[in-house]
Amino acid sequence: MSLLQHLNWRYATKRMTGERVPQEKVDYILEATRLSASSMGLQPYTILVVENPELRQQIQKVAYNQPQIVEASHLLIFAAWNNVTEAEVDEYMQNIADVRGIPVASLADFKASLMNGVVSRTQEQKYEWSARQAYIALGTALAAAAEQGVDATPMEGFDPAALDELLNLKEKGLRSVTLLPLGYRHTEADFLATAKKVRRDKEQLFVTLD
Amino acid sequence: MSLLQHLNWRYATKRMTGERVPQEKVDYILEATRLSASSMGLQPYTILVVENPELRQQIQKVAYNQPQIVEASHLLIFAAWNNVTEAEVDEYMQNIADVRGIPVASLADFKASLMNGVVSRTQEQKYEWSARQAYIALGTALAAAAEQGVDATPMEGFDPAALDELLNLKEKGLRSVTLLPLGYRHTEADFLATAKKVRRDKEQLFVTLD
Repeated sequence: MSLLQHLNWRYATKRMTGERVPQEKVDYILEATRLSASSMGLQPYTILVVENPELRQQIQKVAYNQPQIVEASHLLIFAAWNNVTEAEVDEYMQNIADVRGIPVASLADFKASLMNGVVSRTQEQKYEWSARQAYIALGTALAAAAEQGVDATPMEGFDPAALDELLNLKEKGLRSVTLLPLGYRHTEADFLATAKKVRRDKEQLFVTLD
Repeated sequence: MSLLQHLNWRYATKRMTGERVPQEKVDYILEATRLSASSMGLQPYTILVVENPELRQQIQKVAYNQPQIVEASHLLIFAAWNNVTEAEVDEYMQNIADVRGIPVASLADFKASLMNGVVSRTQEQKYEWSARQAYIALGTALAAAAEQGVDATPMEGFDPAALDELLNLKEKGLRSVTLLPLGYRHTEADFLATAKKVRRDKEQLFVTLD
């Protein structure tokens, strides 16, 4: 099956069965997400993985009691970095140098472009930039889950400040931006399971410039 | 080949050959992008498709003269809606009603959640929200291009205000957020073509909460 068929198969599942997603499928989805593109390659976010049912019950309370949180098998929480400083840039430069076997000094120009282009921004601008990068990863995770026949529901419907407090994210320099329960659709309970997919017409979504 | 293999194959191509990407592959990538998830399903962005070489030369001038803009076959410009008003929500409700063959009045609760949850925000908050949704679509486009063996380079390195002016985007209620040239890697000219992919270690990127 092609990606196009996988994307047509998936939908924002409202009710899940509780069936467990095998670890190798979770690992596959996470690995695809790890390979996501990001601006300058920095990947300025952390992805929290929650399987524990009691913790998911607590999270559900700050997510408008939406059932997928507890009916899912695993819950991914995409949390953007609240700030980007020279420390994170240096860590990234060291990682590049290690992986490619090159001196870190040879990356001076690249470091400068990150310092001037990103680190120099205001803290709130950096958070918004980091959040956007996390959404690329979300798009990758959705494609990977669909390919694996795993349902996934991107969710912004939660109280980020309350969730950040529950999980002590602030002290880790993180802010939750979106949730992604992974599980299996409950075809009988979910009225959306049989609904036609609605998307903007291509004539509206795309504009060809000549 | 699996998505994971496609994602390992792709990289942010710095130099392209100029070879044309067949129309059916471009159409496939666009259709995958059209099927992307977005918050509430609104898809609050427009994707501009530019093949014209002269126009791409002009765009290159506001994108730090990066060669991919003109060496690509097609250039996609992801432009987020600058605002979200009741008019766009109503158009969306009508689309759902038409596709699913249901009365638009039956969507009153869903419309209310969009009005309260999105339209009530400040204009700048709505723009930022729309930009994030566009980045999910960017993630989907990257996965689709890789699957089709088409190289693609997500680019934030351009002057959005200058590009918006060049393309009269402001009067269309749009703001450019990211570029995506589609083409084929120039293996000899691109030093990154053979470089090892660098990503954060999974032990750092993922945190399991128990």
